[in-house]
Amino acid sequence: MRRLCNLRLVLAYDGTGYAGWQKQKNALSLQEVFEKTAEKVLGHPVAVAAAGRTDAGVHAKGQCINFYSRTPIPPEKLKWILNQKLPRAVKVVRAAKAPMRFHATYHAEWKIYRYVIRNHPEPSPFDRFFHHWEARPLDLPAMSAAARVLLGRHDFSAFCGPLGRDRNPNRTLRFIRVCRRGAEVHVDVEGDSFLHHMVRILAGTLLYVGLGKWKHKDVQEALQSRDRRKAGPTLPAKGLFLMKVRYRKVLEPVPEGKIPPEPPA
Amino acid sequence: MRRLCNLRLVLAYDGTGYAGWQKQKNALSLQEVFEKTAEKVLGHPVAVAAAGRTDAGVHAKGQCINFYSRTPIPPEKLKWILNQKLPRAVKVVRAAKAPMRFHATYHAEWKIYRYVIRNHPEPSPFDRFFHHWEARPLDLPAMSAAARVLLGRHDFSAFCGPLGRDRNPNRTLRFIRVCRRGAEVHVDVEGDSFLHHMVRILAGTLLYVGLGKWKHKDVQEALQSRDRRKAGPTLPAKGLFLMKVRYRKVLEPVPEGKIPPEPPA
Repeated sequence: MRRLCNLRLVLAYDGTGYAGWQKQKNALSLQEVFEKTAEKVLGHPVAVAAAGRTDAGVHAKGQCINFYSRTPIPPEKLKWILNQKLPRAVKVVRAAKAPMRFHATYHAEWKIYRYVIRNHPEPSPFDRFFHHWEARPLDLPAMSAAARVLLGRHDFSAFCGPLGRDRNPNRTLRFIRVCRRGAEVHVDVEGDSFLHHMVRILAGTLLYVGLGKWKHKDVQEALQSRDRRKAGPTLPAKGLFLMKVRYRKVLEPVPEGKIPPEPPA
Repeated sequence: MRRLCNLRLVLAYDGTGYAGWQKQKNALSLQEVFEKTAEKVLGHPVAVAAAGRTDAGVHAKGQCINFYSRTPIPPEKLKWILNQKLPRAVKVVRAAKAPMRFHATYHAEWKIYRYVIRNHPEPSPFDRFFHHWEARPLDLPAMSAAARVLLGRHDFSAFCGPLGRDRNPNRTLRFIRVCRRGAEVHVDVEGDSFLHHMVRILAGTLLYVGLGKWKHKDVQEALQSRDRRKAGPTLPAKGLFLMKVRYRKVLEPVPEGKIPPEPPA
């Protein structure tokens, strides 16, 4: 019998038209698409763990997943085969063997998301599913200054969407940057984890600052209020990308029921 | 009563999901989308003439159209309003007044199309509706040499799809170039007009040359055969863009029935 191995893959995907990452009844998820394709290629049931549950319409350039297999196919070759078989919306960026106890969800330490705003008087037909369009000019220094208010550990209840049922609304943002890249404005954030819709509400709040509707102190007040109605709008899913996941160096044991199942021997 | 003017617009569009440029029953065309939006903005019926009838799924960066109006809205402002009202797949790139007798179809002298092939071992999820993917390496010098066979005036029957019902299959290609741009290979062609599917079959034929399946002389034989079965495959619509239209300097009179109607006074 071949030796069991733990495979770690980085995925990029266009989330347009998918019901998000996580498997669900009555709607097509990226997890289901990936698992079904991998099952055909590997010839055994595949159950993956993923770093981020991206919402419907959200994209990824660096989603990280892991699963167990006894396949003799080397990871580089597996990546190539999967890229032939997966729908064109989904791509394996990297594939490698990981330590047996590595878990893509539990050992994630920091996640980097990017929100993309097209800031140009004219729309762009060819990449319109990958940004939110704002024709009016944005004040980037004001947005950057307001963004700094959000750095550090805070109760982010004001920046949490309707499905945020976490008992603990405290999150740490260790990096936030607003920068212009050609016609686009990128809001890049790195945090330990994110509440439901948190990045999209952060981006919507900073957009209000960029448009001059709100000042730096309005963002401070929104944060302190812990009241969703005090923060800015939730920008559309299509501008959001899961960019990268950073993992812990020390891989602590994962609760037994949470480990993806091994394939049958 | 305001003076009648002839408006000339350049459009860019993502043709994905549309039934092509030309208006038709039971399917949504780009012409219909544009005309309906313009009618709402201008408050009168709009009937446009266009340079190219792009097929279903084909894109444009430089489709050229004209129509008559008595609107007091200046062209630059009209462009801005239309870009607010049009679906995000369609954009007005330029708008200007044209001489009264200018006709976007009849006075077109040369059209430039681009076929985009992604030539990279890995797929690209985010722009997959805008290229045809070929993972195997392509021999560009061979493609360029074979392309030169097609320059000039020829009977292009071998490069004509099923709907090519033109009585005259002769066309002039005055420019053809195969070049690499990052991960993409562009096949750029400029001709007086094109038969049905002609650019996509040209690109498919050159792709065969690039893969080493065919030689320079196979392309020559295909051209001389005037037999569709001797040329390469029709590549998918999604890789094709109408890039630019060049117009005649001298605008000869257009047959009466072909002029877009004036709006009611």
